Amino acid sequence: MIMYNVIDKKKKGGELTRDEIEYFVNGYVNGDIPDYQVSALLMAIYYKGMSDTELLNLTDIMAKSGDMADLSGIDGIKVDKHSTGGVGDKTTIAVAPIVAACGGKVAKMSGRGLGFTGGTIDKLESIPGFKTSIQKEEFFNIVNTTGLSVIGQSDKIAPADKKLYALRDVTATVDSIPLIAASIMSKKLAAGSDKIVLDVTTGTGAFMKNIDDAITLAQKMVAIGEGAGRNTVAYITNMDVPLGIATGNNIEIIEAIETLNGNGPDDFTEICMNFSAAMLNLVGKGNMDECISMAGKAIKDKSALGKLAEMVRMQSGDDRYIYNTSLFEKAPYSYKWISGSDMYIMQMDTEECGKTAVMLGAGREVKDSEIDFTAGIKFYKKTGDYVKTGDIIAELYSSSKEKLDKASKYIKNAYKTGSREPEKQKTIIAYITRDSVIKY
Amino acid sequence: MIMYNVIDKKKKGGELTRDEIEYFVNGYVNGDIPDYQVSALLMAIYYKGMSDTELLNLTDIMAKSGDMADLSGIDGIKVDKHSTGGVGDKTTIAVAPIVAACGGKVAKMSGRGLGFTGGTIDKLESIPGFKTSIQKEEFFNIVNTTGLSVIGQSDKIAPADKKLYALRDVTATVDSIPLIAASIMSKKLAAGSDKIVLDVTTGTGAFMKNIDDAITLAQKMVAIGEGAGRNTVAYITNMDVPLGIATGNNIEIIEAIETLNGNGPDDFTEICMNFSAAMLNLVGKGNMDECISMAGKAIKDKSALGKLAEMVRMQSGDDRYIYNTSLFEKAPYSYKWISGSDMYIMQMDTEECGKTAVMLGAGREVKDSEIDFTAGIKFYKKTGDYVKTGDIIAELYSSSKEKLDKASKYIKNAYKTGSREPEKQKTIIAYITRDSVIKY
Repeated sequence: MIMYNVIDKKKKGGELTRDEIEYFVNGYVNGDIPDYQVSALLMAIYYKGMSDTELLNLTDIMAKSGDMADLSGIDGIKVDKHSTGGVGDKTTIAVAPIVAACGGKVAKMSGRGLGFTGGTIDKLESIPGFKTSIQKEEFFNIVNTTGLSVIGQSDKIAPADKKLYALRDVTATVDSIPLIAASIMSKKLAAGSDKIVLDVTTGTGAFMKNIDDAITLAQKMVAIGEGAGRNTVAYITNMDVPLGIATGNNIEIIEAIETLNGNGPDDFTEICMNFSAAMLNLVGKGNMDECISMAGKAIKDKSALGKLAEMVRMQSGDDRYIYNTSLFEKAPYSYKWISGSDMYIMQMDTEECGKTAVMLGAGREVKDSEIDFTAGIKFYKKTGDYVKTGDIIAELYSSSKEKLDKASKYIKNAYKTGSREPEKQKTIIAYITRDSVIKY
Repeated sequence: MIMYNVIDKKKKGGELTRDEIEYFVNGYVNGDIPDYQVSALLMAIYYKGMSDTELLNLTDIMAKSGDMADLSGIDGIKVDKHSTGGVGDKTTIAVAPIVAACGGKVAKMSGRGLGFTGGTIDKLESIPGFKTSIQKEEFFNIVNTTGLSVIGQSDKIAPADKKLYALRDVTATVDSIPLIAASIMSKKLAAGSDKIVLDVTTGTGAFMKNIDDAITLAQKMVAIGEGAGRNTVAYITNMDVPLGIATGNNIEIIEAIETLNGNGPDDFTEICMNFSAAMLNLVGKGNMDECISMAGKAIKDKSALGKLAEMVRMQSGDDRYIYNTSLFEKAPYSYKWISGSDMYIMQMDTEECGKTAVMLGAGREVKDSEIDFTAGIKFYKKTGDYVKTGDIIAELYSSSKEKLDKASKYIKNAYKTGSREPEKQKTIIAYITRDSVIKY
């Protein structure tokens, strides 16, 4: 096989065979095929796309380029959940305990913060003692015992994706829907769960800026999951506003705990209830209505909160924090943005919100930055809210006075205000299965 | 400036500024920009094309990446001629002397054979003693004295094109019409002539397989030439059949000499008359009809033949060969392909014809192959001809019995025969100026 011919075939819109895809992915990973040929092929894929068969093959081959987690040591059906990234997205931290409380098994590998979006692993590490780097046997044991465990993703998962992503990142080929789908799903397939619920975010704070692209991406990922024998469904959710009130690290953990206590923000609670129900539905716990009731019960009877505490304890974390959130360290500096007039919040630029949080110390400005677990923002007023003079619009937190001062000015760029009541924002936009797109 | 942004802009169909083009071309040549970013950009250009302004800037910057020949040491208006390549294309060898005989100045840098197409420099070197590597002062002196000189192209001409071409060659981005136009015209601009006649070949033996693409390429090159202040016109010529009868090296020189003696094949003579006239027209020697007459006269009175002999002598070649072609060395082995039936030649695959000639030793199978100047083919019967039993269809020549045996079988792949008279082949298909496309 010759790489030139593979590029030329895709360039002309041809469908690559499994052998051709295997040849280029494995050849690139082992260094036989140079990056300049792969980048030309990636650009051709950007324009010509990939068929469902090509995409399934690409994803499978990328997944198999590294370790394929074998979760058979965990009893029962394992269900995973993945978000394409957002601001204020602490969903896993509330959803995994709910699912576990209802008898599901969540053996989850999560990532760290990337750019302006936070990472579940960083957030969990704001719980004192909590360990996210755990050996396989211990991981299995925790899931078998508690029903859930969330650990950091191993470097050995889908190395082909890592290498291809690094190349896409410098050759302007990141925003190709099939390549995004293959990248995400290769890691999901390698991570080993039987069932998958996807959260494809859309809007100013998401990679997918418009709903149609988000739906296309979701459909491709669902097709890959189903094609690989893993039942997969996807939600399209709104990232035109940050999710919930809190964006940061320990303040998001606190918000997840409040939600498991039944006191969460409406939008975040809605997401948690639906995602938990979809996950429970996939593992056969009942129809969607029944699963929604089960999830509600797990919050009401505090069994989900108990599951979170159990996991924290088994991962060496201090579970007293789960039952008493006032123990969490607080930022030494804070700033309340108080409204000087009566007005509506017309629009938010969620990416700017996320960037402000990074600026405060909640994320990494460069690769090796240390995270300030206390830093972040509470968005008390969001798009659609009416604000009166004297109301707090948002509150910012940081361990650095300088960062706080800078961010306090910057945050105002993220809001547009006005006098006319704007259209109500939806939290969930659509629900996608192999055969259907249900718009909310 | 950041290369990522340049790729992304072109990817989305944006128009690159001169600064952006300069940044990527010069950055690539000096090693600051890696090949994997350039190949991604080239693939984006393949899909999104380039505007006339972008193309003019790209060509100009590529031309200026190396030496820009300053031909001001040669008196008068210098006129160049360039072909996109063909089989049996000995046009320069006849046309340059005709133009010189009529008072034009041809200071031409030519290339060697590439793939299945021969090179003017290789052909000229089949004249004993003929030197193609000549210092600038001597080159100027020869053109000032005789009106013409043909030398090998310097390595210092358009190094950006050399580097970009090598990358395109392995990333399936050669067949991009704007990139082809920029590649050719960068070398023409750097070569320094004031006026340019282009020959864009089309058909089975040409890079452009169809006429529409050939016309588009010609229009782009004419636009670049005119935009750079060099009057440029282009012919579209038929490469569905080899040009003339002879394909090889010294047998093509002999055919060019016969043509200057008024005994050339019809198709090749037609090309020579038209191209010479177009070149003379560009340098202001008269209208096309007048220039055709002048060219005819230069053949009839043998002044063109005299010019060829003059150039050969001044470039250390033995000019007795020009007046007595029987002096040329003959291949020790030859094979006559004789028809076993009455039939029409329906079609020829000219690329296969060229490959057969290479197989015989007339071109290079690998980069450093020695050329067998006596090797080649005479195509006595071409598409449209009626062949009777016993007629010689083609004659093959080689210094190697093995090569001759192999090629004698292979050549039959290049012909399709049949019993119905096929449509007549045109030699010249169109003539293209800045403002018009005249189809023949």
